Amino acid sequence: MIEGGPEPAIPPAWEPYRQGDSISGVAIRDVRVILTAPEGIRLVVVKVETTEPGLYGLGCATFTQRPLAVKTAIEEYLRPFLIGRDVHDIEDIWQASFVSSYWRSGPVLNNAMSGVDMALWDIKGKIANLPVYQLLGGKTREAAEVYVHASGPEPAAVEEHCRELMVEGFRYLRCQVAVAGYSTYGVSGRTKDRHYRVSIDTRQERWSPEAYVRRVPELFEHLRSALGPEVELLHDIHERVPPIHAIRLASELDPYRLFFLEDPFAPEDNGYFRQLRQHSVTPIAMGELYVNQAEYVPLIQQRLIDFIRVHISDIGGITPARKLAALCEWFGVRTAWHGPGDVSPVGHAANLALDLSSSNFGIQEYSFIGERSREVFPGTPEVRDGAMWSNEQSGLGIDLDEALAARYPYPEHPVNGAWPEVRRVDGGVQKP
Amino acid sequence: MIEGGPEPAIPPAWEPYRQGDSISGVAIRDVRVILTAPEGIRLVVVKVETTEPGLYGLGCATFTQRPLAVKTAIEEYLRPFLIGRDVHDIEDIWQASFVSSYWRSGPVLNNAMSGVDMALWDIKGKIANLPVYQLLGGKTREAAEVYVHASGPEPAAVEEHCRELMVEGFRYLRCQVAVAGYSTYGVSGRTKDRHYRVSIDTRQERWSPEAYVRRVPELFEHLRSALGPEVELLHDIHERVPPIHAIRLASELDPYRLFFLEDPFAPEDNGYFRQLRQHSVTPIAMGELYVNQAEYVPLIQQRLIDFIRVHISDIGGITPARKLAALCEWFGVRTAWHGPGDVSPVGHAANLALDLSSSNFGIQEYSFIGERSREVFPGTPEVRDGAMWSNEQSGLGIDLDEALAARYPYPEHPVNGAWPEVRRVDGGVQKP
Amino acid sequence: MIEGGPEPAIPPAWEPYRQGDSISGVAIRDVRVILTAPEGIRLVVVKVETTEPGLYGLGCATFTQRPLAVKTAIEEYLRPFLIGRDVHDIEDIWQASFVSSYWRSGPVLNNAMSGVDMALWDIKGKIANLPVYQLLGGKTREAAEVYVHASGPEPAAVEEHCRELMVEGFRYLRCQVAVAGYSTYGVSGRTKDRHYRVSIDTRQERWSPEAYVRRVPELFEHLRSALGPEVELLHDIHERVPPIHAIRLASELDPYRLFFLEDPFAPEDNGYFRQLRQHSVTPIAMGELYVNQAEYVPLIQQRLIDFIRVHISDIGGITPARKLAALCEWFGVRTAWHGPGDVSPVGHAANLALDLSSSNFGIQEYSFIGERSREVFPGTPEVRDGAMWSNEQSGLGIDLDEALAARYPYPEHPVNGAWPEVRRVDGGVQKP
Amino acid sequence: MIEGGPEPAIPPAWEPYRQGDSISGVAIRDVRVILTAPEGIRLVVVKVETTEPGLYGLGCATFTQRPLAVKTAIEEYLRPFLIGRDVHDIEDIWQASFVSSYWRSGPVLNNAMSGVDMALWDIKGKIANLPVYQLLGGKTREAAEVYVHASGPEPAAVEEHCRELMVEGFRYLRCQVAVAGYSTYGVSGRTKDRHYRVSIDTRQERWSPEAYVRRVPELFEHLRSALGPEVELLHDIHERVPPIHAIRLASELDPYRLFFLEDPFAPEDNGYFRQLRQHSVTPIAMGELYVNQAEYVPLIQQRLIDFIRVHISDIGGITPARKLAALCEWFGVRTAWHGPGDVSPVGHAANLALDLSSSNFGIQEYSFIGERSREVFPGTPEVRDGAMWSNEQSGLGIDLDEALAARYPYPEHPVNGAWPEVRRVDGGVQKP
Repeated sequence: MIEGGPEPAIPPAWEPYRQGDSISGVAIRDVRVILTAPEGIRLVVVKVETTEPGLYGLGCATFTQRPLAVKTAIEEYLRPFLIGRDVHDIEDIWQASFVSSYWRSGPVLNNAMSGVDMALWDIKGKIANLPVYQLLGGKTREAAEVYVHASGPEPAAVEEHCRELMVEGFRYLRCQVAVAGYSTYGVSGRTKDRHYRVSIDTRQERWSPEAYVRRVPELFEHLRSALGPEVELLHDIHERVPPIHAIRLASELDPYRLFFLEDPFAPEDNGYFRQLRQHSVTPIAMGELYVNQAEYVPLIQQRLIDFIRVHISDIGGITPARKLAALCEWFGVRTAWHGPGDVSPVGHAANLALDLSSSNFGIQEYSFIGERSREVFPGTPEVRDGAMWSNEQSGLGIDLDEALAARYPYPEHPVNGAWPEVRRVDGGVQKP
Repeated sequence: MIEGGPEPAIPPAWEPYRQGDSISGVAIRDVRVILTAPEGIRLVVVKVETTEPGLYGLGCATFTQRPLAVKTAIEEYLRPFLIGRDVHDIEDIWQASFVSSYWRSGPVLNNAMSGVDMALWDIKGKIANLPVYQLLGGKTREAAEVYVHASGPEPAAVEEHCRELMVEGFRYLRCQVAVAGYSTYGVSGRTKDRHYRVSIDTRQERWSPEAYVRRVPELFEHLRSALGPEVELLHDIHERVPPIHAIRLASELDPYRLFFLEDPFAPEDNGYFRQLRQHSVTPIAMGELYVNQAEYVPLIQQRLIDFIRVHISDIGGITPARKLAALCEWFGVRTAWHGPGDVSPVGHAANLALDLSSSNFGIQEYSFIGERSREVFPGTPEVRDGAMWSNEQSGLGIDLDEALAARYPYPEHPVNGAWPEVRRVDGGVQKP
Repeated sequence: MIEGGPEPAIPPAWEPYRQGDSISGVAIRDVRVILTAPEGIRLVVVKVETTEPGLYGLGCATFTQRPLAVKTAIEEYLRPFLIGRDVHDIEDIWQASFVSSYWRSGPVLNNAMSGVDMALWDIKGKIANLPVYQLLGGKTREAAEVYVHASGPEPAAVEEHCRELMVEGFRYLRCQVAVAGYSTYGVSGRTKDRHYRVSIDTRQERWSPEAYVRRVPELFEHLRSALGPEVELLHDIHERVPPIHAIRLASELDPYRLFFLEDPFAPEDNGYFRQLRQHSVTPIAMGELYVNQAEYVPLIQQRLIDFIRVHISDIGGITPARKLAALCEWFGVRTAWHGPGDVSPVGHAANLALDLSSSNFGIQEYSFIGERSREVFPGTPEVRDGAMWSNEQSGLGIDLDEALAARYPYPEHPVNGAWPEVRRVDGGVQKP
Repeated sequence: MIEGGPEPAIPPAWEPYRQGDSISGVAIRDVRVILTAPEGIRLVVVKVETTEPGLYGLGCATFTQRPLAVKTAIEEYLRPFLIGRDVHDIEDIWQASFVSSYWRSGPVLNNAMSGVDMALWDIKGKIANLPVYQLLGGKTREAAEVYVHASGPEPAAVEEHCRELMVEGFRYLRCQVAVAGYSTYGVSGRTKDRHYRVSIDTRQERWSPEAYVRRVPELFEHLRSALGPEVELLHDIHERVPPIHAIRLASELDPYRLFFLEDPFAPEDNGYFRQLRQHSVTPIAMGELYVNQAEYVPLIQQRLIDFIRVHISDIGGITPARKLAALCEWFGVRTAWHGPGDVSPVGHAANLALDLSSSNFGIQEYSFIGERSREVFPGTPEVRDGAMWSNEQSGLGIDLDEALAARYPYPEHPVNGAWPEVRRVDGGVQKP
């Protein structure tokens, strides 16, 4: 109060907010981390158990390069922070968790939060007896169209792979081709038998951005000519070239009418999107590596990308992702959530809940989910007719057979699943 | 297909999306419009009835200056367009309705859509057996702090009114003072007895922007000195001055630390916000007249306002408002949804559902709701301790006694409730 | 090769780069994590041991809110990734580690990398038999002037605290004052006895941004009048107010000529700096929470802050920090590395190495380091005459008594050191 | 102090910083300038001698058009300014020297400072017993890939020259072709015998920008067709055309996939880069003429160039160059330090130290260093397999045989080595 001023009649606020006691009658009883690798990829799944017998939820916290750090973050920090809180307070729990570490917005902590967040949406859906997509506004489309991955050592082999996928009903194909003498992202993992073959190891790989950017237009020249104008073709640069090369490549791919071009720049080179826009009319999908809103909000706000493609668990779960979808809708940007092999089936179910309920849904990436995974995760969304379909069960509609999951421990690996060390011909580190 | 190219194997898409058939088993059976004016203000409420006996929802479509046009829009156009659709498809129904008129984004059609949209959220909450705020992410705060209106012919009278309100527990007061010789927005409706006294009529009122902008600083000089630094004071320019006057006024009010200054410009003068920001550090709340995203998205994206204060039914209901809240959160803007007398109690309940579930909630405007209204609308949110509280019932938690509502028909009025005709001293039209 | 083109004579590159074998003859033999809490604050220190007997380095990886997640990241991922590499390849190791997790730029992984990075600089200095500041370009000043923390329940008490500190030779004082009825950052930790008293616990604290911003100008009105114009006063907003309040506060503090104002906005509200600059000429120091270059590069590039104040371990160690100092120098921005109690003495030594060697050094934050810490960390930099001095030993000049460190295990804490849960009066989460 | 206020207790700062006394015990004893021209190019080398017997360093200060002015600047001004200072204080000495002339940032003074700066880094490396690249962060690649110069009177002759160079292992070729009837930069100096043949004389040369820009695309049409897509081709405009011509040329060269295009504009025309970017996706390398940060910082910050190609001695030595490399890294720009015949072998060694230690190294320009030079400068970096390799000696790893150097005095020259006077067909001066 200012010295000598009048006595203000300012009324006191009401009593402090509840401190972790549950209001709805259903509280978080435990937060558990389940590690499993049915297909050899290190998955992290969170199970939030409640005070209501039999009521629990599942969330994806898969950071396959650093899974144990996520596990520690959950078990040592989020678990004690959250036990006893009302399961319904999803938004509040997200915000309180976000600032509870003070430093924030990184992949370990975001994945940890995602595991809890998706599980709480799963629980809310079960309490409501509704699929999560219904809580998010209901279905805006019957199913979510997916794109799948075609690759091969030569354009003709990629074409053959495409034809196989088209016969199976896929209309959106992400195509990658080998570059002779160099490792190439997305090519080794040929997926004919539908078991994702792990291409990540610790060998140092050699890479030439220049050879790659010369090679890619040849691929699409071949594919567009061979497959006709109707099939939707996509390509992923995977951030592996200097910015000006990505700009050139986008420009050179314009004639082939890609559905979109993925991840032209590393996150650290976001500042080049404006120049890319000046040189190309190819739609741009971006963001599987984003973990911080400073990375993606400006791009959307400035309308420099056409599809947001973040990995939902890496930004913190459904809660931030649905707000991000809303942000994008105001700016005419569509969604294309990251859906590779290192999204657990729970994460795919979360992607699908957003896909179905978002007016500005664009496309869903899909990596084939093997039979082992489907056994471990009953209720895994099915893909047919080129689209992913909800099983219409309440919550995320997915379960976890813990006993079976335990039969697939993490594979032995010298550096525990680190991303391969890609280097240029002179030995310099290549992102990523 | 490229001339002479090979036959592409592009697979057909699946069968077209359902055309109005219900998937969940609960469909829209009827859409009805109820007109009532318990306090003399022309309210428009929509009741969506479903194929499930006893299951219905309520929405606010109140456009008190053009209520019958809204009624016509609903009954003649939305009703036949929507009957038979799945009650769960809120997002889809909003989008389909939005473009069904081709020309869109105006107050008549937005209010019509809002009536349906809020009703569908109400229904979804009832199906889930959860309050709507739970569907939107859960409670982020115990209750929604409100601001109320104080006014008087002289600063001392405003002070007296403030003191009365403070005794009742209000900590946020919007203060308006009369300008001798001129009509002044917000002053005539002294509300001691809690029955909103209608200040709107069709007489032409005279107005002087110059007299007004001289008067207002005197009011806050008095109030801040008399009431001390702690009570939060607000003021509404109500778009009634030329832009440069609003800029000057904002600057002159800086020393009095307003919680916010409302609606400095008419929507047509949005382009002046950048200049206002250069001259004042007073928080700005804006937007009760906005009906089009071209009006509000740029202001938020450029961080030129601090509070978004749209009238939710005037932008189309909860569906766009929750996305707008998300948009604002990315840019550090808080919500202050419009909550005047011409929001029906159903609309207040919708405001509250958003207030409670939004992390970036700022404040809620509140106009006293009289006893007659509370009888017509059982479950109307209560205000105590300076905040609005949920009654914790499922859906929006509010009902409508149709028989009682019918007892309060629209009052006779020469021009059916048109906004008062305000003119400058020379007879020129003054906005608004 | 393009079909039918001529045979290019492009010569092959040389043989692939070494794969983890040491060239200099000194390789990383082990990477160990030491946890200790001599003053009750959870410190994380990394010890990199080499193939050279007796040669090792120390680095700070302290993320006191999530220390065990950092420990896991180092032990499970960085350790196997780095063993056998040449200790001299600091830049290469940083880049390879950065992308080895694919997702990156968060506080857990950055701290893990910092622990290794500082230790490698320490080792390089020992090999060179030079203090690290010499490797970084040599001494640009005799010692690094520091600012320390003064606080109290009332302005007069803060003044008293300031006078005590001034008698001890401090010329730069960060001053915080209590706000009656609310928790206030920086006030509880009165440090007269030089043992940092931990103010962080799990109680929910109440906070009013409005009360705080009214209070602070009173403090500086008092201090500037009482202490005269010469002493340098600083203040930390600690990101705890809405952006427009921070802008107002900066403007209102202009007359008191602060040396700088710290952290006006949360990282998510970086977009407001441009507006702050329009309203205030108070120097701005920013960034203890930054973990991602998308957060800080644009601010520097646009010259919107005057001091960069990141927490060096939270951006990844000396390697990125020295480049950040260089970036700042091109834009006239000075350094003010974060130096609170949750920087280990090793981290303080790293701060000092940069302080001494950077032409654009501004000031160094300093929190008193207690006797127990100095015993556990022999060689901890000393502060006298208001500045921090190098002990002129090679490397970082600091050691760790592991046996003694083991006597100070982490304190018991319900949520393992989470940041306190601060909430507004209505219960909403307050950052941070 | 405020009138009547209390006596402030502001403590005095400590005693002034040392004024030239050495702390490390090793001081600058003398600064000597050695002039020599083993290949006919006027080189300027600085030798800093220390108080430690036998300990000295070498730096390149070669400004071949104004060598005696550099010599005077060093001997008359830097030498007395620096004698007695601690050899370790490289950063401090650079800053103090920089402002010691008050007017600064020109090639004479920058070269003078570079001579001292490189010598001090050389000394520091010797004291540390480490190559300078180790002080700068260690090796990020095995060796530095180089580009060399191919030229000829006709495209076919350039092709032949290229093939010879490719056989020798070079993968990056800068190609220049003669324009009939006009002098052309870079063409006369055919270098088969590896003795740089001096192309610079004082005769006035005639030049036609129009003829040149017509000619260059023909060259690359020929080369790309003849040599295939894999070899990396470069071209240097050498600032010899009006800006809009350079923009057109960049655009016309897009199909030939240059590795980069050098120096499109004179420094005075920096303002055209934004337009160039709108018209071309060819990577741009810029900057051999820059001497002032106002010339290069904005280009980098706006990401308008892809390679920074300053002449290190012309910006002041390793100290500013390493900060410039850091600046570039934040913005995705790579390094391509100027490496022509008028860089002394000492300067090449300094380039190499930065090349090896910079993550954002791009390419190194290399002009063949003749046998005479290698005798005068023992330890000159070797080029094999298309890359420049460190000799792994401490410091810059290079020495100077002063007696031998004295045998190669500056050649007689009417205007002492002035840059050739190039004029347009009408006699107007052509830059540069």
